[in-house]
Amino acid sequence: MFRFKQELRIPGPTPVPPQVLAKASSPMINHRGSVFKEKLPQILRRLQPLFGTTEQVYMVTGSGTAGMEMAVANLVSPGTPVLCLVGGFFGERWAKMCRAYGGEVHELSYPWDTAASPDQVREYLLSHPEIEVVFATHNESSTTVINDIQALAEARGSHQALLVVDAVSSLGGVPFAMDEWGVDVVVTASQKCLMAPPGLAFVCFSKRAREKARASSGSRYYFDLEIYDAYFQRQEPPYTPSVSLCFALDEALNILEAEGLERAFARHLLMRDMVRAGVRALGLEPLTEDKCASPTVTGVKLAHADAFRAEIREKYGVEFAGGQGPFAGKIFRIGHMGYATPLDMLTSLAVLEMSLDMPGAATSAAERVWKQAQ
Amino acid sequence: MFRFKQELRIPGPTPVPPQVLAKASSPMINHRGSVFKEKLPQILRRLQPLFGTTEQVYMVTGSGTAGMEMAVANLVSPGTPVLCLVGGFFGERWAKMCRAYGGEVHELSYPWDTAASPDQVREYLLSHPEIEVVFATHNESSTTVINDIQALAEARGSHQALLVVDAVSSLGGVPFAMDEWGVDVVVTASQKCLMAPPGLAFVCFSKRAREKARASSGSRYYFDLEIYDAYFQRQEPPYTPSVSLCFALDEALNILEAEGLERAFARHLLMRDMVRAGVRALGLEPLTEDKCASPTVTGVKLAHADAFRAEIREKYGVEFAGGQGPFAGKIFRIGHMGYATPLDMLTSLAVLEMSLDMPGAATSAAERVWKQAQ
Repeated sequence: MFRFKQELRIPGPTPVPPQVLAKASSPMINHRGSVFKEKLPQILRRLQPLFGTTEQVYMVTGSGTAGMEMAVANLVSPGTPVLCLVGGFFGERWAKMCRAYGGEVHELSYPWDTAASPDQVREYLLSHPEIEVVFATHNESSTTVINDIQALAEARGSHQALLVVDAVSSLGGVPFAMDEWGVDVVVTASQKCLMAPPGLAFVCFSKRAREKARASSGSRYYFDLEIYDAYFQRQEPPYTPSVSLCFALDEALNILEAEGLERAFARHLLMRDMVRAGVRALGLEPLTEDKCASPTVTGVKLAHADAFRAEIREKYGVEFAGGQGPFAGKIFRIGHMGYATPLDMLTSLAVLEMSLDMPGAATSAAERVWKQAQ
Repeated sequence: MFRFKQELRIPGPTPVPPQVLAKASSPMINHRGSVFKEKLPQILRRLQPLFGTTEQVYMVTGSGTAGMEMAVANLVSPGTPVLCLVGGFFGERWAKMCRAYGGEVHELSYPWDTAASPDQVREYLLSHPEIEVVFATHNESSTTVINDIQALAEARGSHQALLVVDAVSSLGGVPFAMDEWGVDVVVTASQKCLMAPPGLAFVCFSKRAREKARASSGSRYYFDLEIYDAYFQRQEPPYTPSVSLCFALDEALNILEAEGLERAFARHLLMRDMVRAGVRALGLEPLTEDKCASPTVTGVKLAHADAFRAEIREKYGVEFAGGQGPFAGKIFRIGHMGYATPLDMLTSLAVLEMSLDMPGAATSAAERVWKQAQ
């Protein structure tokens, strides 16, 4: 039903505003010509406030995973002792990737519905002075958990370890202060809170991370920071980038800047709170406690979650995401990142309450949250 | 002048047909949903005739270089003896990339305006039985040379070496027969003869190459064939792909199939022959001899080539490419790949003859070539 208007409520790729989509159709231009040479540095500078940094932001043509690998490839050589904080699918990805590069991987695992504990990290690092890099996830979209990166960064104390953060599903929707918090590498991608199509990743390195990269012997070419640096110094990408997607992102940044970052952050929190109030009003339980609840995606426990999702997709044209790992088939996830408003949350909740034969129960609870926030 | 209609005559990214650009603006969908699960395998199957293979074509979200690295990352481990045929910028890239992965790199260099010699390759391999992989370039766009891949493949004789070919700037515009020629890995990308925006690479492995990949210990995750295989078996990409660009490529394949591959190949040869006849009629010399002249891009020798290009870009809105490496500033390159017709060659030649104050000289020569081909 209503296939012509699919409501995409998954944690990425997220709906793209029509004015952004329109820019993806811009005529092709020379990526080494004067227009693109002006446009690309502008885009990268406009991303700096989202990272909370004055460092150069690099663009990698690829998925978010490509951005993650740019961090690993430049920092992890065979034998490099690293600590991966694993509390979900994307934390696991850090560990797998570091192993693929021969790193000596220490895993600090925490339950998949909770956040990483800064105290545990502090303790672990105290007893493992050899750790060179800690890999963390800001917003673990697989478990709908937001981690406290500032606290994790502080937990290092005077320990030498660099902190690398996957902020793919948070940057632009959740505050981040790379420089202030002392984070060393931050990775994000175009298709989440940035409201653009997938295909571009963005990575930023602190001065310490750059130094370590220079000394690192891991195999890399496409992801080699040194090559990127050489080209970016003359305002060019090393390899032919997704020119169309850059134009799209440029327009998406116009929208984000017009709203203002603070208001965008508040909007994401409001959507989260509406969804959580709504599902609770239906007698359903969010996967995570309030204290670590992601501002960009909400998990909801439900037996037969996949059949429930399929029915909603068919009947109402609303697409939720399923569970991953231990939660496969046991939860569904409601994405509320990027190009989404509180009104979209009302329709997401409407199809839930209709499916559960509780007309108005969830939406009314969410409306009250919204009213209170006004 | 005429900035609203830039004629992009560079060897990629190439002009994208408006109907293809329009598809890049399609609404975003779930890359793990049923629509994309149907679309992606279709696209990859439709690419097989361009490769000349019945093997699985893999899509990598990234630049053409990412596709090249998928070959290297899966076949080159520290100490792997490889032979790189280097006669241009992209041949050099193979060598650099193999070194980055710790390969023991043998380089067989040949002059930058000629093709690789199958005889030299045969001799080299006879005296170096240890070589495990040969890396070659089909169309070396930096030198506007087409290499005879069939002959290079045959030159191996009974030697064990796998043959990996960069066909980024040729596939879809120049015949290729991976299976018949016995080529083991072929790489291409979306933004050349495929007439789509940049951002997607495509890679295909022979059974022998797959076996070697399984035994190879090089560091890889984003480019790991094993991970791709696991996902592609269930018709899914491992990481979030450029969904918009897939829709665009889908439409580009419609255009290419409607024309027919044989006619597309003939069109590229005709454009090449028109350009070569035209520039010669102006008293200019193509960079390469006819026998190895690229069907997709033509280099033209000219003192002060860069100033000449800049003037043409400013005055006429036609953008040619400059030289690379030893040819920087000494040649200009006329791209004639993908979404280009013989009429476009006439306008490219028109701005040349006007700039050289020889009205009609080049276009009339090119028209005669075209008439003869009819």
